[in-house]
Amino acid sequence: MRRQAIVDTAASVFARRGYHATGITELCVANDLGKGALYHYIGSKEALLAAIHDRVMDEVMLGADRVAEAGGTPSQQLAMLGEELLDVIHRYPDHVWVFLHEFPALTGERAEQFQGRRREYERRVEAVFRAGVDTGEFRALDPRLTALAWLGMHNYTYLWLKAGGTLSARDVAKPFADIFIRGVAGPAEGHDKG
Amino acid sequence: MRRQAIVDTAASVFARRGYHATGITELCVANDLGKGALYHYIGSKEALLAAIHDRVMDEVMLGADRVAEAGGTPSQQLAMLGEELLDVIHRYPDHVWVFLHEFPALTGERAEQFQGRRREYERRVEAVFRAGVDTGEFRALDPRLTALAWLGMHNYTYLWLKAGGTLSARDVAKPFADIFIRGVAGPAEGHDKG
Repeated sequence: MRRQAIVDTAASVFARRGYHATGITELCVANDLGKGALYHYIGSKEALLAAIHDRVMDEVMLGADRVAEAGGTPSQQLAMLGEELLDVIHRYPDHVWVFLHEFPALTGERAEQFQGRRREYERRVEAVFRAGVDTGEFRALDPRLTALAWLGMHNYTYLWLKAGGTLSARDVAKPFADIFIRGVAGPAEGHDKG
Repeated sequence: MRRQAIVDTAASVFARRGYHATGITELCVANDLGKGALYHYIGSKEALLAAIHDRVMDEVMLGADRVAEAGGTPSQQLAMLGEELLDVIHRYPDHVWVFLHEFPALTGERAEQFQGRRREYERRVEAVFRAGVDTGEFRALDPRLTALAWLGMHNYTYLWLKAGGTLSARDVAKPFADIFIRGVAGPAEGHDKG
């Protein structure tokens, strides 16, 4: 629990000051810990950055698992995936900021692991588009490029979707799903366009 | 011209190393200039960051002006705006990386100026959605939230759309416009859904 609290505190320090500009001394002060104790819990500054990434990816993948278990049509899957993703962005603004800005600072095995997890999530999104094309619910489209469009539209909300703001994750997820699902719908779909 | 070359070189250094982690000495080496000469051309490191932002915003606003002059329906305007924006992202990957990652480092008047220009561009995009709703070409939607969705989808391509890559700006702009325009089309629109 102490380790998790350190990770969360570091996320807000990194989000405010930047990863490279933040020294271990600052992290010690923010956590009210000596250097020895901090290293005991986290190992290194880069390990801390990796832990922030994992915290986001754990939540994102849990959401994707819930969606897969819930089943439903590709359109329903897509709407649920969007709501889960925006919920993580809404609840973890600092972690997501660090996640999206500082991932190039991860090196070696940590960078590979992070890219692997990110790619795994992207594949889940692609699979939904592929399934929709296969069943004819979606029109013929490039599942990879369409997944990138969908990810951009949702991920980029980290700049303005904040816990404590006027918009909830659901306030945004619903109109976003409306745009995207209509945008990829196949010719046979008799969806409500009112 | 020398100043512009320094700005471009700085963009690639900042994109690789991060703004805060880059020292004036590194910028001198990258530009083959002494400190005095560098300061003569740029004034300060923050002025350099502001110049990188301006370089991107100049191009983005020029594109938006061309679109406004070209006229056409809101759908056509949107497709053109997307192509112009992706073209800037494609041509200036380093500048855009720095632009999107390091804007919080701008302070005071520079921060205000930057936010003003960014807001001005967002308003252009919003105006297209508002016009589409007014004419009935687009369904009833929130122009601000829809503009944010559109901006996210396009801006986020900076992570994977690169000059020298396999995809051109147009390769991406076309399918993105297809998704978005279908996604916001009004019920009366008889657009081709094949």
